[in-house]
Amino acid sequence: MSIKSLIKKVAKLEKVNASFLEKQVKNNRVVIPLNYKHDIPNPVAIGEGLKIKINTNIGTSTKKDNIEEELKKLKVAIENGTHTVMDLSVGKNIEKTRKIILKNSTVPVGTVPIYEAAIKCKERDGDFDKLTFDDIWEVLKIQAKDGVDFFTIHAGILKKSLDILKEDKRVCGIVSRGGAILARWMYVNNRENPFYENFKHILSLAKKYNITLSLGDALRPGSIADSTDKLQIFELNVISELVKLCIKSGVSAMVEGPGHIKINEVAFNVELEKKLCFGAPFYLLGPLVTDISAGYDHISASIGASIAALYGADFLCVVTPAEHLRHPTVEDIKDGLIAFRIASHSVDLLRFKDEFYKDYNLSIYRAKRDWKNMFENLIDKDKSKKYRSDIEENLDLCSMCGDYCSLKIIENCNFL
Amino acid sequence: MSIKSLIKKVAKLEKVNASFLEKQVKNNRVVIPLNYKHDIPNPVAIGEGLKIKINTNIGTSTKKDNIEEELKKLKVAIENGTHTVMDLSVGKNIEKTRKIILKNSTVPVGTVPIYEAAIKCKERDGDFDKLTFDDIWEVLKIQAKDGVDFFTIHAGILKKSLDILKEDKRVCGIVSRGGAILARWMYVNNRENPFYENFKHILSLAKKYNITLSLGDALRPGSIADSTDKLQIFELNVISELVKLCIKSGVSAMVEGPGHIKINEVAFNVELEKKLCFGAPFYLLGPLVTDISAGYDHISASIGASIAALYGADFLCVVTPAEHLRHPTVEDIKDGLIAFRIASHSVDLLRFKDEFYKDYNLSIYRAKRDWKNMFENLIDKDKSKKYRSDIEENLDLCSMCGDYCSLKIIENCNFL
Repeated sequence: MSIKSLIKKVAKLEKVNASFLEKQVKNNRVVIPLNYKHDIPNPVAIGEGLKIKINTNIGTSTKKDNIEEELKKLKVAIENGTHTVMDLSVGKNIEKTRKIILKNSTVPVGTVPIYEAAIKCKERDGDFDKLTFDDIWEVLKIQAKDGVDFFTIHAGILKKSLDILKEDKRVCGIVSRGGAILARWMYVNNRENPFYENFKHILSLAKKYNITLSLGDALRPGSIADSTDKLQIFELNVISELVKLCIKSGVSAMVEGPGHIKINEVAFNVELEKKLCFGAPFYLLGPLVTDISAGYDHISASIGASIAALYGADFLCVVTPAEHLRHPTVEDIKDGLIAFRIASHSVDLLRFKDEFYKDYNLSIYRAKRDWKNMFENLIDKDKSKKYRSDIEENLDLCSMCGDYCSLKIIENCNFL
Repeated sequence: MSIKSLIKKVAKLEKVNASFLEKQVKNNRVVIPLNYKHDIPNPVAIGEGLKIKINTNIGTSTKKDNIEEELKKLKVAIENGTHTVMDLSVGKNIEKTRKIILKNSTVPVGTVPIYEAAIKCKERDGDFDKLTFDDIWEVLKIQAKDGVDFFTIHAGILKKSLDILKEDKRVCGIVSRGGAILARWMYVNNRENPFYENFKHILSLAKKYNITLSLGDALRPGSIADSTDKLQIFELNVISELVKLCIKSGVSAMVEGPGHIKINEVAFNVELEKKLCFGAPFYLLGPLVTDISAGYDHISASIGASIAALYGADFLCVVTPAEHLRHPTVEDIKDGLIAFRIASHSVDLLRFKDEFYKDYNLSIYRAKRDWKNMFENLIDKDKSKKYRSDIEENLDLCSMCGDYCSLKIIENCNFL
């Protein structure tokens, strides 16, 4: 599909004017991650003036390596409203896994190509210290041909960053997997980041396939103590340069953001990204607003995400309750995604009439205790039905207040 | 215990200066809800300059009426760090239930006395339309003597409020149980709110027993469409008058707040309460930032609560996943409470060193993959241990990234 017809199609799906969308894409205030080689029913636009979008991470781990399980997660994520998925596999048969996910996904698929490059190098050499840009380039080309829609590229971590880290220290040094791989490689080889040095090559490939570059924050803070530190902002400045190069080359770019951020710093983190990166779409992982909530990180991350969304974040990456503890199960994926849908919806309802009317209609049904229609309008029909199953189905109240239901007490009063 | 020695004791528990606390209490910027008749090991202070406090609602419903179950909830709530509980029972044997909860609670206990008055009247007359202030007064006196530490008093809903409601309409008219009982009574009897008319009597009783008055928001919005409407603010103005009367009488007062609030209106709702009510402690139920999240209302409420806390809310009332659907189970109580502890902690860590160091220490252990010490410092040791049980216990990584653990990849690099 040409860019023109893609924009037309997406404008219809997003219910916005096509010329508005075209202008937003041209100015890189909106991206439409869709590889020319990838044909999916649900493309999506991400950025300023549009509804907030959600990404769900799936993919194998070296300790949990079952493609069937990942396909179940893909299905559950799509059923529960994710707008994109990222295949973050690092298990065996990484190429095959990616191809299967790409084939089965009805939504755009992103990857972090450094994983595949490092894994293939490790399979060849025993470790990834001898990784070359040629190795990386091979993987980028294969993934581009296979139809990957967006690449996370960690081109913002430089040798200078490691000097800053050495000088200023952190509680949790580097918590990005791609960032850690590159930092180790740069340290062992005493060389500059190959993604940064070869960024123009990457731009040409992205341009050829219409791949959106997601400029990864290799140095995102991974603890509250490291929130918004010099290292993070140094990387954001490098990313700002890279966004400029993307815009000049007509390649779509978004910017990835933290991580673990103090709750009072979330708003200005979004504002700073927008300011330094020419309004490029901002893609956040969380942020988590505390480090101590493992087992419930979907909750602390949805708190951070909702504030980020309110201040302009465009794209939210789901954090599941499994974060920091285990490879997420299918159930974890659903719990995390629902929490993030609540976060994004709480902001979308301020900006989009159809989102506001979801709440409005639900509350009209609630006032009437019309359970059937309530279930249809709730974010998770199944869980809410199950919760109400502790009481006779045809009752016009629930077991919470029982006969002291406030809505029932006043229903025949003339002031309503 | 005299007020002086109570303040001394609580100042120690709160790790603040006793003369600071005394001044704050005197100016009604802090309340210490503790009835002279109630002896508990864990009194608590709520308000400006102190850590955020959490209340958990327990109590029977007409449909779920099992005192043993409520005692289990009390236990779980206290074990998981609630600072107070409210007994919102409306089931049978309401007086007995309250006495048992008061006896078993190690934290302050609040009630909504209109429930007991209405229930006793209904038992006598078949409905509560003939309720008198004498009936209410009897209940207030019994509860005061029994040692209840704080009363929710819905004195802010007036006949004039019902005129406004009639004129301006709402999607979900009145969602406070106490508010609905009073609104119906005022409508049927065409009389003014007995709590408002007899507020000075209530003050004298509160003074006698050192009961904190929690000025209830009978007209809190119960849907996003009703968020921050004229009716809500009209009631807040009446409550402002009542706070003034409390301060004049030397009675401690806090103010209850919404409810369902648009996410971009949460901050100014807190600021408005503080402004209009002379800095009185603000006690919020949530607020929920969307109506469509039943089954996950603890998440949308903890989003609202964390923003409210950041802008100055002092006291947060737990909303459980069961809200709008069923009488909460013991598990619902725990899930809701943990979500609210995450919300309050995310703000407390900005203000209190010992709270910040919870995150700091956890992250130090995390960087070392010291699981044993991590569990000890997490908000819920049991859930996090269970989550990690999918992998060999002695491994220094988790199943999420497996061998591609970022922290492990870089551990021997000299930049750390």
